[in-house]
Amino acid sequence: MHLRVINPNTTRAMTDLIGRSARVVAAPGTLVDAVQPTMGPASIESHYEEALAVPGLLEQIALGEAEGVDAYVVACFGDPGVDAARELARGPVIGIAQAAMHAASLVGRRFAVVTTLGRTTGRARELVDRYGFRDACVAVRACEVPVLAIDGARARLVDECRRAVQQDGADAVVLGCAGMAELCAVVGDEVGVPVVDGVAAGTVLAQSLVALGLRPAATGEYAPPPAKQMTGLLAGFEIRADAPVAVA
Amino acid sequence: MHLRVINPNTTRAMTDLIGRSARVVAAPGTLVDAVQPTMGPASIESHYEEALAVPGLLEQIALGEAEGVDAYVVACFGDPGVDAARELARGPVIGIAQAAMHAASLVGRRFAVVTTLGRTTGRARELVDRYGFRDACVAVRACEVPVLAIDGARARLVDECRRAVQQDGADAVVLGCAGMAELCAVVGDEVGVPVVDGVAAGTVLAQSLVALGLRPAATGEYAPPPAKQMTGLLAGFEIRADAPVAVA
Amino acid sequence: MHLRVINPNTTRAMTDLIGRSARVVAAPGTLVDAVQPTMGPASIESHYEEALAVPGLLEQIALGEAEGVDAYVVACFGDPGVDAARELARGPVIGIAQAAMHAASLVGRRFAVVTTLGRTTGRARELVDRYGFRDACVAVRACEVPVLAIDGARARLVDECRRAVQQDGADAVVLGCAGMAELCAVVGDEVGVPVVDGVAAGTVLAQSLVALGLRPAATGEYAPPPAKQMTGLLAGFEIRADAPVAVA
Amino acid sequence: MHLRVINPNTTRAMTDLIGRSARVVAAPGTLVDAVQPTMGPASIESHYEEALAVPGLLEQIALGEAEGVDAYVVACFGDPGVDAARELARGPVIGIAQAAMHAASLVGRRFAVVTTLGRTTGRARELVDRYGFRDACVAVRACEVPVLAIDGARARLVDECRRAVQQDGADAVVLGCAGMAELCAVVGDEVGVPVVDGVAAGTVLAQSLVALGLRPAATGEYAPPPAKQMTGLLAGFEIRADAPVAVA
Amino acid sequence: MHLRVINPNTTRAMTDLIGRSARVVAAPGTLVDAVQPTMGPASIESHYEEALAVPGLLEQIALGEAEGVDAYVVACFGDPGVDAARELARGPVIGIAQAAMHAASLVGRRFAVVTTLGRTTGRARELVDRYGFRDACVAVRACEVPVLAIDGARARLVDECRRAVQQDGADAVVLGCAGMAELCAVVGDEVGVPVVDGVAAGTVLAQSLVALGLRPAATGEYAPPPAKQMTGLLAGFEIRADAPVAVA
Amino acid sequence: MHLRVINPNTTRAMTDLIGRSARVVAAPGTLVDAVQPTMGPASIESHYEEALAVPGLLEQIALGEAEGVDAYVVACFGDPGVDAARELARGPVIGIAQAAMHAASLVGRRFAVVTTLGRTTGRARELVDRYGFRDACVAVRACEVPVLAIDGARARLVDECRRAVQQDGADAVVLGCAGMAELCAVVGDEVGVPVVDGVAAGTVLAQSLVALGLRPAATGEYAPPPAKQMTGLLAGFEIRADAPVAVA
Repeated sequence: MHLRVINPNTTRAMTDLIGRSARVVAAPGTLVDAVQPTMGPASIESHYEEALAVPGLLEQIALGEAEGVDAYVVACFGDPGVDAARELARGPVIGIAQAAMHAASLVGRRFAVVTTLGRTTGRARELVDRYGFRDACVAVRACEVPVLAIDGARARLVDECRRAVQQDGADAVVLGCAGMAELCAVVGDEVGVPVVDGVAAGTVLAQSLVALGLRPAATGEYAPPPAKQMTGLLAGFEIRADAPVAVA
Repeated sequence: MHLRVINPNTTRAMTDLIGRSARVVAAPGTLVDAVQPTMGPASIESHYEEALAVPGLLEQIALGEAEGVDAYVVACFGDPGVDAARELARGPVIGIAQAAMHAASLVGRRFAVVTTLGRTTGRARELVDRYGFRDACVAVRACEVPVLAIDGARARLVDECRRAVQQDGADAVVLGCAGMAELCAVVGDEVGVPVVDGVAAGTVLAQSLVALGLRPAATGEYAPPPAKQMTGLLAGFEIRADAPVAVA
Repeated sequence: MHLRVINPNTTRAMTDLIGRSARVVAAPGTLVDAVQPTMGPASIESHYEEALAVPGLLEQIALGEAEGVDAYVVACFGDPGVDAARELARGPVIGIAQAAMHAASLVGRRFAVVTTLGRTTGRARELVDRYGFRDACVAVRACEVPVLAIDGARARLVDECRRAVQQDGADAVVLGCAGMAELCAVVGDEVGVPVVDGVAAGTVLAQSLVALGLRPAATGEYAPPPAKQMTGLLAGFEIRADAPVAVA
Repeated sequence: MHLRVINPNTTRAMTDLIGRSARVVAAPGTLVDAVQPTMGPASIESHYEEALAVPGLLEQIALGEAEGVDAYVVACFGDPGVDAARELARGPVIGIAQAAMHAASLVGRRFAVVTTLGRTTGRARELVDRYGFRDACVAVRACEVPVLAIDGARARLVDECRRAVQQDGADAVVLGCAGMAELCAVVGDEVGVPVVDGVAAGTVLAQSLVALGLRPAATGEYAPPPAKQMTGLLAGFEIRADAPVAVA
Repeated sequence: MHLRVINPNTTRAMTDLIGRSARVVAAPGTLVDAVQPTMGPASIESHYEEALAVPGLLEQIALGEAEGVDAYVVACFGDPGVDAARELARGPVIGIAQAAMHAASLVGRRFAVVTTLGRTTGRARELVDRYGFRDACVAVRACEVPVLAIDGARARLVDECRRAVQQDGADAVVLGCAGMAELCAVVGDEVGVPVVDGVAAGTVLAQSLVALGLRPAATGEYAPPPAKQMTGLLAGFEIRADAPVAVA
Repeated sequence: MHLRVINPNTTRAMTDLIGRSARVVAAPGTLVDAVQPTMGPASIESHYEEALAVPGLLEQIALGEAEGVDAYVVACFGDPGVDAARELARGPVIGIAQAAMHAASLVGRRFAVVTTLGRTTGRARELVDRYGFRDACVAVRACEVPVLAIDGARARLVDECRRAVQQDGADAVVLGCAGMAELCAVVGDEVGVPVVDGVAAGTVLAQSLVALGLRPAATGEYAPPPAKQMTGLLAGFEIRADAPVAVA
């Protein structure tokens, strides 16, 4: 089984971190690699950056399909481009917000999300609703640390997770950024409830879906997009009869 | 007051149609223009195309800000890139799905959405939920006609709208595609309940928000994105200190 | 276009205030007048008063229909009698709670309502639910100032709006009383997020619906009521074959 | 214990029917009487009529308070004026829609409402939501028979109830009109699931609340309304310091 | 009419208390007795104990059916085994959580539940959702006193109820344990809003359903279970053709 | 890693089937065994049988804890006793309804449940709500075949699944009975959308949680139950200081 974890931003250190985190939890016999786009923002902390990360993400899906990848994990907590990616991929595509929330709801009854900047909590709540966890999610909190600085801000992250447990009554915590992946264990030790990293959760859930032989229906919402002309800078992204996506 | 309606696809005839539809309903003294991106898909009928339409849409927002535009209408029923656009714009940005649903819920009690292809109904339902109309929307129907062929498929559109009224009990119909704008009056005459076109609805609602002096809070979710490096094809879309967005 | 704003209480100063607020935002060419009933309570701060304000409101709708008014705004935050009014009127009827919530949800993501007396918050929450804003509305707060004293209580109103922003995370505020209309700008300046007055919002939204040519379906829930005998004090309010409503 | 059932319309035969239905189910020792207003519509089949029935209903509550009535049932399926009545009454006030839905949800898992005219289903659904039965209520159906003709339309009522059971999967039926009270047993025999009449349900639930010693909190939403001037036709309904309501 | 209140735990003093509380509110002519199982836990403070209380509860239902009991109240706030009991009983079965929440929502607008141990609040919230009171219930609080010690912890109970009123804005309080039944009046006096004990509420509601002649549909979800072999310790609990349940 | 799948009924052939289905999807290195209780019903098709299956299920959890099992799957679609089991187990416990719904919502947008007897659909819907899939689940259907006869009723199962796809618009189907496990592949081939068997889904999800190191919080709702006396037939199930559960 070949899983690919895609970091939708262009920061190499984060791609490496994500790859390590995914490989730790994969089953024996599962090949996991981690890639990043050739274009787009250095990190994703706004709707604007999320939108501009998607073309590069889709390029990586197209390349993965050519290589026969079995399933993908999109490693940004806004789950950018996941629906679009599903139209290109033959196998499952899971976002790390989706994966982490599913996992948290399987071990706890009321989870909290603890993320980076407050400005991203609107998107997080939107995903909570989309995935059906409105009742299960008791709070979305931000520790107000930028994505690329999160590694040095462990104490603030732990503090915010503790507040989620003590003030909101959370019995599980979802870490709201791929950059927090390697802090998961240490935060869990300190807060005393299960703490979920979406990169690891996405890896095992994608692996699970492949093991079950599940892939989106070939018709309907996630069918391949209709052949269509693409112009300007994005020429090269069109869908053609002879090649699902022809990335320049 | 200067309103700009942005067609997020690259089909000129559709941009012209959208501009006409918007100008019909604007108040005296409101200047309305219609533009389209320099890049992207010819029409939007999938998550994939929607995602790839957004960079060009954002480019148009950046250009509009340089010109002092007061408010924007995004004229595709998936409301692509609306949140990202709000981070760039000083004034209001409204999607036509959002606008049409708000208008429908102000004149009826139970509206139905009638859109183009069945594969887009998932996105339409997602927007129904996001905007709070889960109880107000009794059905999302598709007439299975592609966006660029809708003008010649009036009979199928009317049939589907009639089913919404007779079978689903809708007392208002929302047309689910910008390309249906000029069919609104004739469809309304035939189905006997109010029929709402989002291009017109977006125009008057954007105008309303400007008249009220309302614009998103300068802090919080829709604050300008942080300065950030952008690489690859999308270089030129970075946010800089001296210019909000520097489109190449 | 002829819009009529109806103050459902019998206090002349408030009718004048409401008229001024509405005219400020109306488009050129829109005639706006403001009226009040010949019967009913001096202000509305309970379910009891709201119920007794409705006959006088309906009387004004009947008079407006005789004059050919195009649309109505009901200027009390409980939106009293709006559904009944829709059965009498040919054009749109909007309540100011409905209008303000719609406008707030178009510029912010999470609005709060700040109203007069705590005893009215139950009705406000009921309207939040009815209009679909259960997720969008993060708080309903009261500043515990009576309707007719609100003009002298600006500081308390500003305090409560600030709490909505700082404690509840609201990024927009809806003012929960028609009597607050002229405080809207000053409160907005102080709290730093968009603040919405329902009288102004109702005016531009009613105007928008008329511009769109939208009016409730002639059949169904808002069809004219069946002809029916009315006895006692309320005789004169019956629906007759030759006149929709014969107000004594 | 003294219960009063108020028919909010002015048709004597219906008041008599309602009184009989209530007395059948009351416990030994409970005095039940049935009254009707001195003003208002002959029957209630629209929002308009519902609104104009409320002053007369409130008059009857005020008279009942003077007589020391312990609890009230409002016998119209739109539950008109119930919140206003709670502000005047010391004891509980229950609407028959509320009562019937509570009772149905205590014996079945998925109830349907079967009412008179289709135009009243919007109000019925609104009450379903208000009382928390959105998930429990699988359908709101109308048999399109006017209120005052329902007694002669038993077959159509039975047909519609059967459809609720067979097509909607209802395992309980709520009759959506006080005028259906005496049809309850016969309909129940024919459709094979529990059928609930709100007049009877309201009687036993009001009796239950009195037995429990429960009455609305003296402070808060249902506190007596503030003293207030009332003008015009409705003078006489003002709240005064020396008398809660002075009905002319 | 013969009502039976079943204490699902095996503590005699609690059974006695429950019987007294039920008899106080029953109507003249209603016979109320209180029983307890022959097996199971001494008190119920976990999912584990709740599960193990159910066989003994079902045994009591089977015995009651042999005696011709008309309706049952299950007197533990987790409403254990209520659906299973409904399949055995010909008449209504009500849990005290269900009963108390229904009663509270008939007199107040926003109730809070105050229960024993924090670990049981998950189950309480689940029941709030199941019964449709998600919007009506503003808080579920625990006073962290074990079930069998609640009688000596009146002050902590009152404190927690006061917080529900003052901090959560509750206008009614539901007591979350059968063991609190006799504290209901005194707590109500101290907190100033209606306080509901589920044992009393269950008694009057069960009595109400019998008076209405309502019992679950004989087909569908609550039909008698299919005849089935039962093995091991639970042999004797099988359903047989000649006897609904043959308890050893 | 040692996973245990518990068939909560006492039919050996079904335990064998469940074991086979689980082992097919487990990763290399994961030991999976399948067990059944020493007491309880031969199959589970009612609330009554579900309740009586739980003691035997809990006995198996207690035995598994003594053996050091890492995680459990409860292989009955009603997810009986799952919360109680979580209090006894150190590792994760997943029900097959929960597992199947999570998996379906990861590959499709709108799933349907197709189960055995119509009488069990109430419980299925309750679980849909509990797990947050109210919006994701478009229908719960029954093919009216008893659990132990399902293997010979493939055609009826396929028919019902097809109706879910064609009439309800489902793009994924959840099989609502452990006995359907080996029909999953063939049904999937016939209906053309992903079909999910909960036994397999539970196995890979339980395995995933163990790989992530996630287990319920040691405090809170799923903490070990308090030490407590158990009497009668169920003596031997008490929680003691020296042994978590002492099954006789």
